[in-house]
Amino acid sequence: MRVRDTATRIYLTPIGTVESSLTDRATAPKQGNEGAPDAWLVFEPAVVEALEGIRPGDRIIVLTWLDQARRDVLRVHPRDDVSRPLQGVFNTRSSDRPNPIGLHEVEVRSIQGRRVRVEPLEALDGTPIVDVKPVLGRA
Amino acid sequence: MRVRDTATRIYLTPIGTVESSLTDRATAPKQGNEGAPDAWLVFEPAVVEALEGIRPGDRIIVLTWLDQARRDVLRVHPRDDVSRPLQGVFNTRSSDRPNPIGLHEVEVRSIQGRRVRVEPLEALDGTPIVDVKPVLGRA
Repeated sequence: MRVRDTATRIYLTPIGTVESSLTDRATAPKQGNEGAPDAWLVFEPAVVEALEGIRPGDRIIVLTWLDQARRDVLRVHPRDDVSRPLQGVFNTRSSDRPNPIGLHEVEVRSIQGRRVRVEPLEALDGTPIVDVKPVLGRA
Repeated sequence: MRVRDTATRIYLTPIGTVESSLTDRATAPKQGNEGAPDAWLVFEPAVVEALEGIRPGDRIIVLTWLDQARRDVLRVHPRDDVSRPLQGVFNTRSSDRPNPIGLHEVEVRSIQGRRVRVEPLEALDGTPIVDVKPVLGRA
């Protein structure tokens, strides 16, 4: 195995921020396809070049940093339903997890400079964006 | 908009490491479905509880930290093909990007304690794992 310094911490740099009408974790949809609204992805000026080629109608995966999540939770009741047995968080989409990265597959509606309108997005207003990737074709 | 302390740094804690026969970025497949091998996900003892409920046959999304990637690249030739015009990295799956997080959809083959065998995985041996999520049902 490759030798590595396991003490090294990994740092992420926010590349933008979500602007959304959703402001409350308790009432926000758990997934985008459960009634989440349109939202704006507002990118930092320094990374605008990295958006080149993205067009309205494209499907993209937005990676966010779920900054209101708990990082010390390893098991949860799926979908906060206490009638369901506890599951490891890696077997759920809970935002509570050691590294609370959100994955959101959305469609691009419009692009205005460094502002990209997408739908549907269940991330809360103010959530940092850390990466964007195209959806790959599915076999 | 929610007020936030933008000076706060985001850091990830590795939850495990990839064990793979792939050791060279230049010759590794670019995507899992391009001939990538089986690999082991070796989790840290502290997070084993978070794996509860994952079974052989499950499809999961593994998030890795692509620690050999460049973070100062904003545009690339897709698939390193210089005959293709430069594209913003957010419109490609290049590992070079401001926050080089890898997304890998794989199938679980077997589980031995904190070691999980998956296929196919194009991540290099020694790559840090930062999250695991189930694949959600597709409409």
